[in-house]
Amino acid sequence: VPEVHPNLRDAAQSPGGEALGRLVFETLDVDEAARRCSVVFTATPHEVSAEVVPRLLDAGVEVVADLSPAHRLRDPGEHARCYPRVPRDDALATLAIYGLPELTRDRLAEARLIAVPGCFATAVTLAMLPLRELHGVLWDRITVDAKTGSSGSGNAVRAHGMHALRSTVVSPYAPVAHRHGPEIVQSLRDHGVTSPSRPPRLAMSAYGVNAVRGLSVSVYLFVEGEVDGANLRSAFRRTYRHEPFVRVQAGASAVIPLPDPKVVIGSNFCDVAAFADPDLGHIVLIAALDNMVKGGAGQAVQACNVRYGLPEDMGLDALPLFPA
Amino acid sequence: VPEVHPNLRDAAQSPGGEALGRLVFETLDVDEAARRCSVVFTATPHEVSAEVVPRLLDAGVEVVADLSPAHRLRDPGEHARCYPRVPRDDALATLAIYGLPELTRDRLAEARLIAVPGCFATAVTLAMLPLRELHGVLWDRITVDAKTGSSGSGNAVRAHGMHALRSTVVSPYAPVAHRHGPEIVQSLRDHGVTSPSRPPRLAMSAYGVNAVRGLSVSVYLFVEGEVDGANLRSAFRRTYRHEPFVRVQAGASAVIPLPDPKVVIGSNFCDVAAFADPDLGHIVLIAALDNMVKGGAGQAVQACNVRYGLPEDMGLDALPLFPA
Amino acid sequence: VPEVHPNLRDAAQSPGGEALGRLVFETLDVDEAARRCSVVFTATPHEVSAEVVPRLLDAGVEVVADLSPAHRLRDPGEHARCYPRVPRDDALATLAIYGLPELTRDRLAEARLIAVPGCFATAVTLAMLPLRELHGVLWDRITVDAKTGSSGSGNAVRAHGMHALRSTVVSPYAPVAHRHGPEIVQSLRDHGVTSPSRPPRLAMSAYGVNAVRGLSVSVYLFVEGEVDGANLRSAFRRTYRHEPFVRVQAGASAVIPLPDPKVVIGSNFCDVAAFADPDLGHIVLIAALDNMVKGGAGQAVQACNVRYGLPEDMGLDALPLFPA
Amino acid sequence: VPEVHPNLRDAAQSPGGEALGRLVFETLDVDEAARRCSVVFTATPHEVSAEVVPRLLDAGVEVVADLSPAHRLRDPGEHARCYPRVPRDDALATLAIYGLPELTRDRLAEARLIAVPGCFATAVTLAMLPLRELHGVLWDRITVDAKTGSSGSGNAVRAHGMHALRSTVVSPYAPVAHRHGPEIVQSLRDHGVTSPSRPPRLAMSAYGVNAVRGLSVSVYLFVEGEVDGANLRSAFRRTYRHEPFVRVQAGASAVIPLPDPKVVIGSNFCDVAAFADPDLGHIVLIAALDNMVKGGAGQAVQACNVRYGLPEDMGLDALPLFPA
Repeated sequence: VPEVHPNLRDAAQSPGGEALGRLVFETLDVDEAARRCSVVFTATPHEVSAEVVPRLLDAGVEVVADLSPAHRLRDPGEHARCYPRVPRDDALATLAIYGLPELTRDRLAEARLIAVPGCFATAVTLAMLPLRELHGVLWDRITVDAKTGSSGSGNAVRAHGMHALRSTVVSPYAPVAHRHGPEIVQSLRDHGVTSPSRPPRLAMSAYGVNAVRGLSVSVYLFVEGEVDGANLRSAFRRTYRHEPFVRVQAGASAVIPLPDPKVVIGSNFCDVAAFADPDLGHIVLIAALDNMVKGGAGQAVQACNVRYGLPEDMGLDALPLFPA
Repeated sequence: VPEVHPNLRDAAQSPGGEALGRLVFETLDVDEAARRCSVVFTATPHEVSAEVVPRLLDAGVEVVADLSPAHRLRDPGEHARCYPRVPRDDALATLAIYGLPELTRDRLAEARLIAVPGCFATAVTLAMLPLRELHGVLWDRITVDAKTGSSGSGNAVRAHGMHALRSTVVSPYAPVAHRHGPEIVQSLRDHGVTSPSRPPRLAMSAYGVNAVRGLSVSVYLFVEGEVDGANLRSAFRRTYRHEPFVRVQAGASAVIPLPDPKVVIGSNFCDVAAFADPDLGHIVLIAALDNMVKGGAGQAVQACNVRYGLPEDMGLDALPLFPA
Repeated sequence: VPEVHPNLRDAAQSPGGEALGRLVFETLDVDEAARRCSVVFTATPHEVSAEVVPRLLDAGVEVVADLSPAHRLRDPGEHARCYPRVPRDDALATLAIYGLPELTRDRLAEARLIAVPGCFATAVTLAMLPLRELHGVLWDRITVDAKTGSSGSGNAVRAHGMHALRSTVVSPYAPVAHRHGPEIVQSLRDHGVTSPSRPPRLAMSAYGVNAVRGLSVSVYLFVEGEVDGANLRSAFRRTYRHEPFVRVQAGASAVIPLPDPKVVIGSNFCDVAAFADPDLGHIVLIAALDNMVKGGAGQAVQACNVRYGLPEDMGLDALPLFPA
Repeated sequence: VPEVHPNLRDAAQSPGGEALGRLVFETLDVDEAARRCSVVFTATPHEVSAEVVPRLLDAGVEVVADLSPAHRLRDPGEHARCYPRVPRDDALATLAIYGLPELTRDRLAEARLIAVPGCFATAVTLAMLPLRELHGVLWDRITVDAKTGSSGSGNAVRAHGMHALRSTVVSPYAPVAHRHGPEIVQSLRDHGVTSPSRPPRLAMSAYGVNAVRGLSVSVYLFVEGEVDGANLRSAFRRTYRHEPFVRVQAGASAVIPLPDPKVVIGSNFCDVAAFADPDLGHIVLIAALDNMVKGGAGQAVQACNVRYGLPEDMGLDALPLFPA
């Protein structure tokens, strides 16, 4: 383990120890897992998840929270288009509950399979959720500009990922057709954010920037008629008033006043803000999160806390490490 | 000088020397400048430019290339709105030629005052210029997402500019109403990029990212009817075929295939690329440049080369420093 | 609070809340502090600590853990030389226990005032402690090369700390006479690391590098006679076998095999390693830690845990955030 | 070419063009090279240089400047120990002139083979050269701490070189036995820097830091008897008074007062400074340069300029790019 996770040296090596040595690493044995665990989190490549998730459920694991995209898209056609090399059980995908508690809290209590959202999809969906209350948005003209650190690319070793080539870039790695687009559209429709009469069209471009952790998304929208900035901002406050992990940034005087991955690193927070330009009939929504916490493992834990009626921030009370 | 520009130590200290010691630093004396110089470049704050540029021209300097925004916007109302604290000579602004050679090459030969474009405005305008040839673009739905390194903020000393706070950010510092917007719209109209019947509306958001030099802009557009990607790409190739400083990126196999400030640093290049998503009726235009060269001093030199019929790349033949 | 600590937004604003909102911020009232607290941590500038620490103790606070250097150096002359503008109570400094548990664990149980060590001093002392067991070290020829991120400079706003000037540097900011030198020498003598007959002479140079958190120190030593590498390494293993927060790196195959601040960020670990070059009679000791945890607040907590017989890692069980 | 050097796009593609398109890329043909070139620069891996350099000289090329270490070490035993997999022509190595003009300017006029120095070796040797004039230095107690950006590791694709793992590190990659050590010692001896009666012993440790270009070295020395700081500094001024590429930093008020790779990037400068601590009998020498210019290709050009009596800064008059 320390070869890949040098931070876990000693933590990993003394499984019987206390506190800092409490992590135990074992090879997956599906039956053994079913015997010992109510919940299994699968943070595996989607092709592995597609194969192992059904086996875990069949073996009797009560809940599987799958961090891969294998079971996120219900529509088999969309899935095949986005992940062509990953056949998966379409019926299972239909049963999966999307693990974004701010969106699906009510349905998680009965979940057997939780499809943990993608990192960009989490940020974009949380940025757009308060628009449920707004009128006049042109749902067929949504633009998303997504910016991520290098940890978002996984740990494959590639020439263009080397430090000398990847430092200080603004690198457009997916100018069109990012795979999180359909995932977002599915959520917007499911939850009545967009108008049923006007199917959403969302164009998303993704960029690599010079950071390791963290991502930021900007959602750009046009509105027919007047844009009411005060109404927009109060929709955000109302939507997230009781959410423990979504912080609405008011842009008040501070060294970092607006959503920035810099101030959420290591935590399960997603920071959001909304701006309106009345002259242009334009709305700007910004969300920032740590792709490895609220955009990954943290969100999976949060969803399982909800699933079992545990305090939603159990195991998730780490404050952002700042400055880092 | 070395206190502010430590790289110029020795170069600045030996004014009589050769090669590396050839820079001479003097306090500005308008009459002396007029006696000795045909061209004066003013890289001064806009309030200083507004005051000194008329004096230089009155004193007989043949050409002034002003890097400040003092004389960029012809419309007095727009100028007052964007730069409220800078009264300037509106008549002079009317005479100024916008110093973007790819746009105004024909008119520069007669210029007395060259208004050197803003860094973002240069990139966005070069990204959009080839659209002159396209039909169906929704000119009232333009979105610009602009990402810049810290040198773009100038050298004022501020808490949120400190390294510990400014590193690894994605910092939305101007989510709406960036001052380069009207400058871009003026150029698009002047040069027939946008349709006269449909006045452009351009929404621009600007972000600080973890780099010192360089910027990248993305322009997002919607199209009525079919988007023809091949036609779009050939419009780019046609527009820039003979331009020495605009490189159309084809996305071919390379470690950095698309426009990225990383590969233009230290040079006068602006790299551009265009993408179409036919399913969404969406166009993505990306441009990257060094904000201190093609987005500043280099462009000023290029414009003056054109002004005097000199080789356009005289003094500008530095290749990008890579990797840096 | 969020103006200065944007990561604590909401956490700071809801003092009565649960978990994420459990932080309470108040202005210091010495008597009130004495009424409510057994322990007070003072993370104040040294001139403030010099003034407030005696008042806290007089008011009846049982233990003060002072993170400033006000009470670290027992010798009044050394203190006056290193911190000339900070008069402090020399008697108090004599009573203070140096809060480096790996060194002073036995004495902390009776501490009323804990002088929490400097960040570099912690790393250098932990790197040198195992040398107690070695013979032949030339104690008058110690060289320390210390490398730190920008958070080590505090949060004063200064021109040379701006991102554009501070990024990608290797900046020698204290080539000679760093103030942590005497603190280290005091510890080496107190704990019998160096030979009593040969007073240590330690030359220390400090550099800023392009990171926010974390520091690394290298200690270079010469040895008379043979250097026994195996003996050196086993001295490290023996010294730190039971220490929860010092990890001896064996250089085994891993992506980051040796002490690097990168793999301790956010944790209270200090990673150490030792190398011998027999041909040159030379020893290299390397230590890395997070300057804000084991080099600051974390160490203060650890020392107080020891003071009260609590589990030493209480409140300190955060694993390093990696990659960050 | 643009696949590996994306900055050269277009510059490489239009070999017949002017200025920006003046680079021509061809496969090496030794006979053709001999026909057309007086000088050939070989920037090849050492095993390639060892094979191709003799062939180029045999074919009649007047001067070969080899950037690899194949011919740097005259002593066959040292070479075999440092570069065990590279047999080379020892006689050729004996004839090679070390291409550090500040050291070997007088001998370069007759060079047929120029062994261009290593990047660290250049910096360390330039830092130490003025010590020729000093007495009492303990030549058997030299310590070098070398810090480099990621470009110093070449372009091999490796897991620990990935951006997520290589960013913000202070990574000790060669704590002992760096291969530039013997190269430095050879130069110190050849040029009478160290005392003939006391053979130098130099211990060198190398670290990767979070930068792409540039390196910094610190040389730590002890002195018997008094250290005279004024004398030390004037030795530096005297040694480099007429050197076009070595700048002695006086530490005067400036945003970056001391040698820092940050202020030499893109140039052929090496910045140096010296400090003495009389209390400790200690000397600190610091040198910074761009590993790809003064530590590589720039130095090769400089040496060839000297070889042919050309202006020494021909082709090397680029000022440092700052801030970058």
